[in-house]
This record gives sequence, structure tokens and C-alpha cells, in this order.
Amino acid sequence: MYVLGIDPGLSRCGYGLVVQQHGATRAVAVGVLRTPTHLPVPDRLAELQRDVRALLQEHRPAVVAIERVLFQVNVRTAIPVAQAAGIVMAEAVAAGCEVVEYSPNQVKQAVAGVGGANKDQMERMVQTLLGIAQPLRPVDAADAVAIALCHLAHAPMLGRVAAARSVAR
Amino acid sequence: MYVLGIDPGLSRCGYGLVVQQHGATRAVAVGVLRTPTHLPVPDRLAELQRDVRALLQEHRPAVVAIERVLFQVNVRTAIPVAQAAGIVMAEAVAAGCEVVEYSPNQVKQAVAGVGGANKDQMERMVQTLLGIAQPLRPVDAADAVAIALCHLAHAPMLGRVAAARSVAR
Repeated sequence: MYVLGIDPGLSRCGYGLVVQQHGATRAVAVGVLRTPTHLPVPDRLAELQRDVRALLQEHRPAVVAIERVLFQVNVRTAIPVAQAAGIVMAEAVAAGCEVVEYSPNQVKQAVAGVGGANKDQMERMVQTLLGIAQPLRPVDAADAVAIALCHLAHAPMLGRVAAARSVAR
Repeated sequence: MYVLGIDPGLSRCGYGLVVQQHGATRAVAVGVLRTPTHLPVPDRLAELQRDVRALLQEHRPAVVAIERVLFQVNVRTAIPVAQAAGIVMAEAVAAGCEVVEYSPNQVKQAVAGVGGANKDQMERMVQTLLGIAQPLRPVDAADAVAIALCHLAHAPMLGRVAAARSVAR
């Protein structure tokens, strides 16, 4: 299953496409979608929309896992991040993907085993889980890969929940 | 000039298409785009995206004027409103429209003459400016028309600023 993790943002939107095959987990494509800060916000949103659409068309992931936008972090940046996340989710559904949101704490809990894991712990866990020699760069892409890994950790349980529900009907 | 005013929202997204011709201002199309609250947020965002795209294709406005999302109003609802606004702005730019954001106070100032105008005053001013016998309904659509009227009030000045800038170059 191909899972595209998204760390949403307007200036920098990290992405990481992860696949689990034959018991191994690989990062297939990682990067950051950037929009120029000197342009008006609506133009930047339209550029992000085009880039996200192209990314989905190129890789055709089954699932898009995206970090849920929370308020407590930074009130000033939450609005453009929410705008970017809205665009990503709408494009992902339009491309036929399943879309799942995870909170930052869910991602940390799933990847590092503790909800309060710091950046350094997260980076090392992503590196270990992918079995790569160096920490993944850029950092936004590593964050996006962590979100995709979080979904892979939850997916077996989500599958069992769905199966139990269909039996209960 | 056709101006589409948008009062962004995920459950209810008000729109009002306004045109100024021969000294008169008319509302050509008003309504509310709704998404079902029982669906997951990503599906609702995708539905809103389809509806906004259809609206832009049908009416082809020159300008989309949209209310700026602010935090102080309601922290819990600001995130879905920002997601909806992001989708509207990206679609509007993709459709070739000029996109302008106005704060709630700018809209009140332009339409009712005071930044602190209440709902009732705003409704009556919209009614007066359009020269219609009854208050415009639904309320979300009236709010969207007010945003379009705000742009029409600003447009002559914006034109002069642009002209002055091009002379100064």
C-alpha cells in the first residue's frame, strides 16, 4: 500500500510517499512543495493546488495521511496551514484517495512510542524504521514520512475495526 | 463588472454575485453552498470544491471578494472556515479571477459606514443599496453580497492606486 504523508503548509508543504512491501518499509519519494512568499496568498494557494494535483497524478497513492491543524501551536500560522490542508484534502478525495488526519501527538506516539517525543527522537526513529544510513532531509519531508508511517502503524487496527463493524451489521 | 462575494464556510458557504451597470447595482445570483455535516471533513471539502468550481464556470466573475478568516471570532470554527476559504481562493485564481480578501470590519465600514455595524443594520444597508423591497435571504447570501458590495466600494480607489503606481514607475 502506497501512503502519501503530508505535513501541510503554504510556504513549505512536506510530502513523503511510503510503501510497505515484503515486510520492509521504504520511502519512495520525498520532498517539499514551496510557494514564493512574495506572491499574494490566493496565487500561492492556486500554485500549491497545481503542485499537489501533479504529485497525486504522478504517484497515485491509495491513502493520503495528513497532519491535523491544531491551534495551540501558533495562532498566526494556523490560518495559512489550514488553507493549505484544505486544498490538499479536497484534491486527495478528488483523486480517489482515502484521506486520514492524525494529530501531532498521534504521529509521535505511533512513530517514537511516546506522544511527547522531540524532533531529534522523531528523526532517528524515521531513519531506523526506513533502515537508512542518514537522517532524511529536508526536515519537512521527514515529518511527512513520519505521518505516513503513523498511518501504516494504524492501518492494521483500522482494518480490524472495519471488519468488526461489517460483521456487527 | 461582475463581483462574486463569498462568505466562506464548510457547513454553509454563502455567495452573492453582484453587478454594477448604468449606475445601478444588482444581485444576479445568491445562495448558499452546503455540505452534509455527517460526512468526513475531506469529503465535504471535495464537495465544496466541486460546487465552487461549477459556480465559477457558470457565472465567470471578474473578481472574487472573500471575507478574511480571523481568529478572535471563534477558535473552534476558524479551522474549517480557513480550509473552505483556501479552496475557494485556489479555485478562483485557477478560473482566472482576481481575488481580494476583506476583513469583517472593512465590509461593515464600506457597506454601513461604520466598522461596528450590527447584523440588522448590515441587512438593511444591503437591501437599500440593491433597491429591493425585502431583506435578502438566506442571511449567509446577504453577508456574501455585502462582501461583493465592499469590493465595489473599494474598486474605484484600487483602480486609482494601480494607475498612480504605473505612472510612478
